[in-house]
Amino acid sequence: MKSIFVLQGPNLNLVGQREPSVYGRESLTDWLSAQLPRWAREGAEVHIIQSNHEGELIDALHAHGFKADGIVFNPGGFTHTSVALRDAVAAIEAPVIEVHLTNIHAREPFRQHSMISGVCVAVISGLGFAGYEAAVQYVLHH
Amino acid sequence: MKSIFVLQGPNLNLVGQREPSVYGRESLTDWLSAQLPRWAREGAEVHIIQSNHEGELIDALHAHGFKADGIVFNPGGFTHTSVALRDAVAAIEAPVIEVHLTNIHAREPFRQHSMISGVCVAVISGLGFAGYEAAVQYVLHH
Amino acid sequence: MKSIFVLQGPNLNLVGQREPSVYGRESLTDWLSAQLPRWAREGAEVHIIQSNHEGELIDALHAHGFKADGIVFNPGGFTHTSVALRDAVAAIEAPVIEVHLTNIHAREPFRQHSMISGVCVAVISGLGFAGYEAAVQYVLHH
Amino acid sequence: MKSIFVLQGPNLNLVGQREPSVYGRESLTDWLSAQLPRWAREGAEVHIIQSNHEGELIDALHAHGFKADGIVFNPGGFTHTSVALRDAVAAIEAPVIEVHLTNIHAREPFRQHSMISGVCVAVISGLGFAGYEAAVQYVLHH
Amino acid sequence: MKSIFVLQGPNLNLVGQREPSVYGRESLTDWLSAQLPRWAREGAEVHIIQSNHEGELIDALHAHGFKADGIVFNPGGFTHTSVALRDAVAAIEAPVIEVHLTNIHAREPFRQHSMISGVCVAVISGLGFAGYEAAVQYVLHH
Amino acid sequence: MKSIFVLQGPNLNLVGQREPSVYGRESLTDWLSAQLPRWAREGAEVHIIQSNHEGELIDALHAHGFKADGIVFNPGGFTHTSVALRDAVAAIEAPVIEVHLTNIHAREPFRQHSMISGVCVAVISGLGFAGYEAAVQYVLHH
Amino acid sequence: MKSIFVLQGPNLNLVGQREPSVYGRESLTDWLSAQLPRWAREGAEVHIIQSNHEGELIDALHAHGFKADGIVFNPGGFTHTSVALRDAVAAIEAPVIEVHLTNIHAREPFRQHSMISGVCVAVISGLGFAGYEAAVQYVLHH
Amino acid sequence: MKSIFVLQGPNLNLVGQREPSVYGRESLTDWLSAQLPRWAREGAEVHIIQSNHEGELIDALHAHGFKADGIVFNPGGFTHTSVALRDAVAAIEAPVIEVHLTNIHAREPFRQHSMISGVCVAVISGLGFAGYEAAVQYVLHH
Amino acid sequence: MKSIFVLQGPNLNLVGQREPSVYGRESLTDWLSAQLPRWAREGAEVHIIQSNHEGELIDALHAHGFKADGIVFNPGGFTHTSVALRDAVAAIEAPVIEVHLTNIHAREPFRQHSMISGVCVAVISGLGFAGYEAAVQYVLHH
Amino acid sequence: MKSIFVLQGPNLNLVGQREPSVYGRESLTDWLSAQLPRWAREGAEVHIIQSNHEGELIDALHAHGFKADGIVFNPGGFTHTSVALRDAVAAIEAPVIEVHLTNIHAREPFRQHSMISGVCVAVISGLGFAGYEAAVQYVLHH
Amino acid sequence: MKSIFVLQGPNLNLVGQREPSVYGRESLTDWLSAQLPRWAREGAEVHIIQSNHEGELIDALHAHGFKADGIVFNPGGFTHTSVALRDAVAAIEAPVIEVHLTNIHAREPFRQHSMISGVCVAVISGLGFAGYEAAVQYVLHH
Amino acid sequence: MKSIFVLQGPNLNLVGQREPSVYGRESLTDWLSAQLPRWAREGAEVHIIQSNHEGELIDALHAHGFKADGIVFNPGGFTHTSVALRDAVAAIEAPVIEVHLTNIHAREPFRQHSMISGVCVAVISGLGFAGYEAAVQYVLHH
Repeated sequence: MKSIFVLQGPNLNLVGQREPSVYGRESLTDWLSAQLPRWAREGAEVHIIQSNHEGELIDALHAHGFKADGIVFNPGGFTHTSVALRDAVAAIEAPVIEVHLTNIHAREPFRQHSMISGVCVAVISGLGFAGYEAAVQYVLHH
Repeated sequence: MKSIFVLQGPNLNLVGQREPSVYGRESLTDWLSAQLPRWAREGAEVHIIQSNHEGELIDALHAHGFKADGIVFNPGGFTHTSVALRDAVAAIEAPVIEVHLTNIHAREPFRQHSMISGVCVAVISGLGFAGYEAAVQYVLHH
Repeated sequence: MKSIFVLQGPNLNLVGQREPSVYGRESLTDWLSAQLPRWAREGAEVHIIQSNHEGELIDALHAHGFKADGIVFNPGGFTHTSVALRDAVAAIEAPVIEVHLTNIHAREPFRQHSMISGVCVAVISGLGFAGYEAAVQYVLHH
Repeated sequence: MKSIFVLQGPNLNLVGQREPSVYGRESLTDWLSAQLPRWAREGAEVHIIQSNHEGELIDALHAHGFKADGIVFNPGGFTHTSVALRDAVAAIEAPVIEVHLTNIHAREPFRQHSMISGVCVAVISGLGFAGYEAAVQYVLHH
Repeated sequence: MKSIFVLQGPNLNLVGQREPSVYGRESLTDWLSAQLPRWAREGAEVHIIQSNHEGELIDALHAHGFKADGIVFNPGGFTHTSVALRDAVAAIEAPVIEVHLTNIHAREPFRQHSMISGVCVAVISGLGFAGYEAAVQYVLHH
Repeated sequence: MKSIFVLQGPNLNLVGQREPSVYGRESLTDWLSAQLPRWAREGAEVHIIQSNHEGELIDALHAHGFKADGIVFNPGGFTHTSVALRDAVAAIEAPVIEVHLTNIHAREPFRQHSMISGVCVAVISGLGFAGYEAAVQYVLHH
Repeated sequence: MKSIFVLQGPNLNLVGQREPSVYGRESLTDWLSAQLPRWAREGAEVHIIQSNHEGELIDALHAHGFKADGIVFNPGGFTHTSVALRDAVAAIEAPVIEVHLTNIHAREPFRQHSMISGVCVAVISGLGFAGYEAAVQYVLHH
Repeated sequence: MKSIFVLQGPNLNLVGQREPSVYGRESLTDWLSAQLPRWAREGAEVHIIQSNHEGELIDALHAHGFKADGIVFNPGGFTHTSVALRDAVAAIEAPVIEVHLTNIHAREPFRQHSMISGVCVAVISGLGFAGYEAAVQYVLHH
Repeated sequence: MKSIFVLQGPNLNLVGQREPSVYGRESLTDWLSAQLPRWAREGAEVHIIQSNHEGELIDALHAHGFKADGIVFNPGGFTHTSVALRDAVAAIEAPVIEVHLTNIHAREPFRQHSMISGVCVAVISGLGFAGYEAAVQYVLHH
Repeated sequence: MKSIFVLQGPNLNLVGQREPSVYGRESLTDWLSAQLPRWAREGAEVHIIQSNHEGELIDALHAHGFKADGIVFNPGGFTHTSVALRDAVAAIEAPVIEVHLTNIHAREPFRQHSMISGVCVAVISGLGFAGYEAAVQYVLHH
Repeated sequence: MKSIFVLQGPNLNLVGQREPSVYGRESLTDWLSAQLPRWAREGAEVHIIQSNHEGELIDALHAHGFKADGIVFNPGGFTHTSVALRDAVAAIEAPVIEVHLTNIHAREPFRQHSMISGVCVAVISGLGFAGYEAAVQYVLHH
Repeated sequence: MKSIFVLQGPNLNLVGQREPSVYGRESLTDWLSAQLPRWAREGAEVHIIQSNHEGELIDALHAHGFKADGIVFNPGGFTHTSVALRDAVAAIEAPVIEVHLTNIHAREPFRQHSMISGVCVAVISGLGFAGYEAAVQYVLHH
């Protein structure tokens, strides 16, 4: 059984409620929860952590980053500015896959550069909820 | 009765004590508290929240941003770099008015750009404590 | 009785007629005129000057800037490029408060920097007509 | 009968006299005057206004921009810096066609960006006097 | 009889079909073909070449650029990046007039600079199909 | 049966042979061919096109972009500079998913910006061959 | 007898009154007037023109720039932004010497570049009133 | 007895474990603890605080910054982006010495600028653990 | 016998005819052909390929880059923008020497950066035809 | 008797011989020597030092900068890059006037910024040899 | 006995005399000389070299950089621009520690980047004379 | 007999000893000396000058630049910053060929721009010692 953490950054708790023209009306939290049994059957124990606090995300990376088989990380608005999160991702041993719901390259200029991507294994951007699926599958099969 | 939140970012708890040549010697916290009865008489229940934690400010925007009639927000040093706060302001429904005590346009270059202004209704900069007054009046009458 | 000048830059004579999706349909000139009696009762003799000519605005700042108690200045499109207006504001003695109807920080990049702000006392942006009210009140009470 | 205004910015009164290696030796003013009878026969009453004063050009756009069928505008040196002229063009209803005698893209870098183009219908650059002809024809046939 | 080439860059074969909200619904190819007899009567034998291959456009400039009386060139998406096309335009003897259907100065930033303009005689942008007409007329009369 | 095109840009024919420390030693062409029967069983007829010619890639987008159910596109080195390919992707109707074998955000600066991403549905970067799998699955299920 | 024009830009009428810590307390206008008899004895009829209007300065350059022996020009705040004044200086025949009271290179960044210098014969910056003396002497002896 | 605080920013709890090729294998926490008795004998009561939370670091600066004799601060990844920490350092009275284990000037470009340095007394970069020693000695003797 | 390829990019077929003030009047093609017998006597079988098509140059690098002893490459206008050519040069095994007829560092700014140089063995710029001689000699003797 | 040093930077020994189309054919060294008796009669003992060595210029500023009444300094090519010369000018007590023969603002971009100007009293650029005269006169009369 | 060189760049001979508001009034040369006996007792033979000549500093690095145990280097104004000094530091074998008296990060922008830091072992900035002490101690104990 | 000078800039005396992974282990000085007899037989009297002093290199260019038939110049670290050397190269009459041992375009960004190239005849970069050979041959045969 593989151990995978899905780490959700700031404001992602509001998806389904926040800016529906951009993010849609389905709750991301509900959708992720609904996948857990299936992912378990496929061999992955998936844990979901959401926080609006940069420090809590760093703590979580420290706590799980030396034991998990992979981390699926959507850093939300911290994506573009946080050197501390970049350092935390670089410091741990588990491979990290960065996921964004929207295609950040088609949005405002300040969203088009990620401080985190350079230390991640891969980046998936714009597949919506399916991006989480692809990232979990990748950890499952590598 | 309108419900208004005054959200104070990092270091604003020190105003009156911090760099008095820049910010003056009167406690902003005391002044705000002293206005509450008057604002109540004029029809606004005003709540004051101060935090040095970016995550707590995001949490507060989530908690009150769908019910309040308006939010008066001085993001302090987070003004210039926080995409996560910008996303939180964009995600909620209450109109947000950005307030700065000093005229940030007459200070260091790195203080002259705000990540938050683009998703706020209005920006008031340099009116000192009176900026909070103008912002509250705006919410009261619109 | 305090003496206050409201200085209106280029194209502001068209507000109410120009780009109503941006600026609304009420005539700013009419609204300002309608406030004069009230402001007089509150203790301020307010004079309104509009010009599309940069030179006339400089002349007006020279003519009134050493005697008025305060100047409320919306430099319109000159905001972003005029060093000469900046020099005129810096040269006079009356405090100048910069006002913009819209939140210029949420508009095109070339509108987000003001050459004038650095020598003004304060900046109010996005409060619509209420920005003039807040500026006049500030002069009245300081 | 269509009503068209040809608006000439600063220094264009000198064409034929100024920098002949760049602009040639024929007087633009004379040439334009000579076309008026022909344009009248083709159905356009064309009016020519030249000014070295930015404010007078704004005034002219205000005065004629709500009634004319089209404005052919060579903003001269104001092309590259004037937000106020841009605002005036955007504020009026008549379509504006920007014309430059020389190909400004083949000149100094500071001449290669126009503040005005983004709110014009079309831009013609480098056709010499024929650029005015093409612009007038365009208004005549659209 | 003058010999003129209309050189069409990538994706222009789709005009009338591609992004109709930007380019309209009329086929540019059909319209150009329909003008050929009239242009012939006015004294110009006009040849139309379209290619999505940068190399074929260079070959065409080499093949016809020493004999034609003028080339009307819409480089499409190559406009903004191709030094090789710029060199080809500079290498030949026929005057080249750059034409764009839309006003590229009112579109995305990366479309606002042309690598080609600096070596062309003139640039026409935003006149739609009429831009081709103006360019052909210019060659006919100069 | 869905129709999907995998469009391979320049140098991708060499993967397995080219810079193995970056791209590995397995032939991408062979791997893609090996997936075709499985993708057919899952409901997708997948066609593979590789070209080192920008013009041929544009032609292919034109030829298949109005009939295919989706296009999986790795533009290789054209990713970073080609406005013409961007225009072609924007001109067609089929959704396009951009795929890169490596995490381009962890490579040289000039590889970190894509001209194409802004008009794609999604971007997958760094999943290796599995990126193609994720993209095909996305088209299959949306 | 040589004919020299001293052209004074915006706000220079206030020197002696404006920002005395920067510009001193002596009236520049009075000082210049006091030199006229001496300059006349040395062979120069010197005329002084001051205006806060960019258009009037252009008009003055046109009116005198084809007959005067030299123009001493302090463009004030227009120095840094006016392409139209640059064009006017380039269009006329009289040599123009740019003068600034203060050393503009030791002031704010936006004052350190002049649009005018590139078409002037020489630039004198920081000699105070003596800069005008040096410029007049230069015209007298060349 | 002097009171000194050593403030450790994000990820510094992992030194000795994190990226040993960059930071070495000795635990920084252990080393600092081991120095406490010696520093006490030399006259300094040294307190160590580590946090991955920006807000907690600000709180600590507020709590101790008005009473301590000096603060030795390694802001970790917050060094490069945090205006709020800069404001907190500027707001307090104790002198702050910035310390980095590695020579940040020899690392990635985004690590070469510090938001904090401009309000610190001194900066020590690249001395490894000895940087803390030098900073404590400096407070002891000044 | 060493095998060397001279790869000529766009517009180089015109040298001797194109912009003679820049490139001279001698045909580069003729000169290269004339050297072949001598180079053969010195031990090098030299093949010359010229194309205006970026894709054909990539194809040629693929076809010969794993067997040739060296490639002398003048990428012409593709020098400054082509990531695809850079990737092709990096993908092959033969050493590549970049040659430019003129000193590109003394020309327009956009010609002063080469996308290709970073993956070449050496760069020769400004030696005219002798640059090809030096490059061939280098391959012959290393 | 005032003591003035004329400090000449690199290559100024060649003026009269070097690039005569830019600098003219008269020897600057001879001209300066010829002025010495006249300046002596007017009350200034003027010493001339020329060096192509940055260090010697610094040594000269140190040696004479605490006793001279003024230094006339043409730093030549060191103007644009030397922080060490700037520091030396700032370190001494004598006022320094920067002189350039040509109008550096009308030359290449890299010549348009001076590292030295910000710590000089004044800057004279483009008056040719007369610039030295104006500078010496300034020291004589202030 | 360790051999250490203290290399002092331009203008440092003036410390104690130059800009005392920035650098203080104590002679750095005297202070360094006074430490020599103590450093000798602690095991280091320290040699002091000061020069205003970049070339002499390079010569000194060459002469001592292959035998000394460490070099303490304050490059003064050469810090920010000298590639040649950087190359010399990189070329030698002795570890180099860069020292600045003031905190260069709190000064003018052009002083905030060092060309030298990237090839030094460590950087100490703002500790005043104590920075030399810390650097010598570092060499003594490593 | 032609007279050629090989001018060697700072640190080149260390080649063979300095950073051998970059520059190799053979002494450049020895190699150059060994070529002198051969070059003499081919008709060139070659003189070698090396200096770490910018001023001495300028002096050498002055001394030999009006009589030599050509100068082969490797400016070392001065390449990227020295306007004074550029001026010296431009001031003399002998053609100058710039040579670099390594391909500077494949190294750090600050090494990729040369201040000198724009006034040289040609630039050879990355051919190692053979670059000197090619440069000498070029002077011999032109």
